[in-house]
Amino acid sequence: MDLNQASQEQLQQWQAQLQQEFENFKTQGLQLDITRGKPSSSQLDLSNQLDGILGGDYNSANGTDVRNYGGLDGLPEMKQLGAEILSVPQDMILVGGNSSLTLMFQAMMQAYFFGYAGAESAWQNQGTVKFLCPVPGYDRHFAICEHFGIDMLTVPMNDDGPDMDQAEAMIKADPSIKGMWCVPKYSNPTGTVYSAETIERIAKLGAIAGEGFRVFWDNAYVLHDLNTDAPALPSIADYCQRHGTEDSVLQFASTSKVSFAGAGVAFMAASPANLAAFKKTLSIASIGPDKVNQLRHTKLFPNMASLKAHMAKHAELLRPRFDVVLQQLQDAFGDNDLGQWQSAEGGYFVSFDTRPGLAKRVVELAAEAGVKLTPAGATYPYGNDPENRNIRIAPSVPKVEEVDLAMQVFVCAVKLASVEQALAQ
Amino acid sequence: MDLNQASQEQLQQWQAQLQQEFENFKTQGLQLDITRGKPSSSQLDLSNQLDGILGGDYNSANGTDVRNYGGLDGLPEMKQLGAEILSVPQDMILVGGNSSLTLMFQAMMQAYFFGYAGAESAWQNQGTVKFLCPVPGYDRHFAICEHFGIDMLTVPMNDDGPDMDQAEAMIKADPSIKGMWCVPKYSNPTGTVYSAETIERIAKLGAIAGEGFRVFWDNAYVLHDLNTDAPALPSIADYCQRHGTEDSVLQFASTSKVSFAGAGVAFMAASPANLAAFKKTLSIASIGPDKVNQLRHTKLFPNMASLKAHMAKHAELLRPRFDVVLQQLQDAFGDNDLGQWQSAEGGYFVSFDTRPGLAKRVVELAAEAGVKLTPAGATYPYGNDPENRNIRIAPSVPKVEEVDLAMQVFVCAVKLASVEQALAQ
Repeated sequence: MDLNQASQEQLQQWQAQLQQEFENFKTQGLQLDITRGKPSSSQLDLSNQLDGILGGDYNSANGTDVRNYGGLDGLPEMKQLGAEILSVPQDMILVGGNSSLTLMFQAMMQAYFFGYAGAESAWQNQGTVKFLCPVPGYDRHFAICEHFGIDMLTVPMNDDGPDMDQAEAMIKADPSIKGMWCVPKYSNPTGTVYSAETIERIAKLGAIAGEGFRVFWDNAYVLHDLNTDAPALPSIADYCQRHGTEDSVLQFASTSKVSFAGAGVAFMAASPANLAAFKKTLSIASIGPDKVNQLRHTKLFPNMASLKAHMAKHAELLRPRFDVVLQQLQDAFGDNDLGQWQSAEGGYFVSFDTRPGLAKRVVELAAEAGVKLTPAGATYPYGNDPENRNIRIAPSVPKVEEVDLAMQVFVCAVKLASVEQALAQ
Repeated sequence: MDLNQASQEQLQQWQAQLQQEFENFKTQGLQLDITRGKPSSSQLDLSNQLDGILGGDYNSANGTDVRNYGGLDGLPEMKQLGAEILSVPQDMILVGGNSSLTLMFQAMMQAYFFGYAGAESAWQNQGTVKFLCPVPGYDRHFAICEHFGIDMLTVPMNDDGPDMDQAEAMIKADPSIKGMWCVPKYSNPTGTVYSAETIERIAKLGAIAGEGFRVFWDNAYVLHDLNTDAPALPSIADYCQRHGTEDSVLQFASTSKVSFAGAGVAFMAASPANLAAFKKTLSIASIGPDKVNQLRHTKLFPNMASLKAHMAKHAELLRPRFDVVLQQLQDAFGDNDLGQWQSAEGGYFVSFDTRPGLAKRVVELAAEAGVKLTPAGATYPYGNDPENRNIRIAPSVPKVEEVDLAMQVFVCAVKLASVEQALAQ
């Protein structure tokens, strides 16, 4: 399907065929949803033993009664697991509640309102505050910035991570840039894995920028390999130590897509100075996290080996869904320029770029045929995809055959929108 | 023991006797702690069935898979329970995570930084912000104010709640007073239960003060009666509705001292406008609370009757401890002016006033003899008890005979400090 060479008649013929195909989908009354990165029921079933796993013993390894108050930064054995997940020393870890998003919000609140180095260091006292946002990226990161009134500047995502030439140049030119969002492994939505060189350059940003600069390192998919031969991500904490920028990076992870999405355990990793400031506010807002749930998780995942074995089961459930998505895209667009995407090695998404100007139309068409997609633009700050071409595909929840059907609709919608556009030009 | 009439010789003789008694305690190497309002292990045991209570069924009444993301304001059946606990309509309830303190912090953050009626309504944009704090009160409330830089003004606690003549006069005179802390039932630490008249006057404060005024109504002990004939607390929401001040009160409660202190479920009750503003920020910071734990709690407490039966078991465990405290105080100070206290009908504390100037000395002496008390001053803003006389006694955790022993030490310390003072005058 080469739109560039096609005659007007050919385009009209294609449109008629696609319109017919599209109408057929519409008559099926589909209700398919590939919008959000949620685990499926089958994935959640993998952790069903969590309820009851304590067998009546509510004492942690060091004898703490986990039912009572206290333990602001989490159980030691859970800190150890977090340390191994994020490749940092255990004393850098804080274990939170059920949400790493909440820890990120709290970390932003600390930076913006209270400061990591006393009240004067609070960003709100420093005029305009800007953040670098690699795009396409994660809408909930952008929402945090927007809620705090932080201006977002985009940086292109390359195959090895954010465009660091551009990021460094922007930070050198503008001291009001106070931070940067990063999802270093299987980035949401592109699936990009940052290279060691990129990670080291990000670790050095703190030396280029001012004191208050903070990278928000959301390692949400650090454990979420689709293949067994996935490479380990270099530890950014190691690079920070090498370059004396320990305070410039705040790391986050969770078991939300490991155990239960809404009832997992979240981790933060930070330098001693950052942790001290963060915990000062946390101690005002909390008498401690849910240690019972932390203890349950230490029983389910007594060590990294058990955690990795568990993740392999997730991969077995996810891989067929990703295979269907990639196969359909390859079949439909492998030999033409109607779409671009990256092969997914892990994470929860496939990022798809239409021809410029078509993402909203594709999402609209798919919705008409009963397939819900993440709103076009959601992967950009302020919902503004300047080229209106990026669409995030999240295939984890529907059954394999439903993903297949949803992708048939998606492919049809992309083709139809592309032909419409070619005809209008 | 009438210090006012005693001769110098009599005082010296008492001092020698008390000093001897005190030394005897010291040789026993006691390690007793009556500092914090925590449930004992026996109380926590009452809810041990929580782990495993789901029996593998993770679906809520309306079919929600509680393991997954979502449900920002909680499960409907848990909202219903919260509504009955706080005597409000269900649509006023938000169900949070494991901590009502966290909800209070978040509610304060909303008022101070983001505003309940748009950014302009945020307190930080309105110059000095002051709060009324009935004293003695709860140190963690004061800590929240201090963290946000909110000035605290004290109001005396009378037998029927805060001194409302004074509170109303202060609010009329000073528009920078933006809110007030209240623990309306079994107030921490005095055990005071606010009268209906007081509650109605608090509900009307919003009409006296400006738009942004907010009462933080921490109903932490609403369920925590020591006696079966305890009266129900009138609903402040009803009074607010009557007087058109629905937006002026934010209510809080939790199951922390009902099920597990660190792994319970917290509730907030607020007007539609307040809830909408609160949830806007919450939706940025969270994809939802731990619904699995909420579901567990709906199984443990399917209705108010089961909850009240459960609380009666707590009362059985707590009552002997309070009886020991009150009996010892009565025996030692019933016929003299060395101390004043209130009889406790519920909650977790007995509030004791020494003669002026002695609280720190009593806490110091008790510590020397191995009995930890809440630091003197903790029940006042900034840790500053102007008369240095209030001490909070929290007898819930130690065994009954340990409470008895701790109180023997306490009584001895109060007498010794009082005699020391009389001799020095």
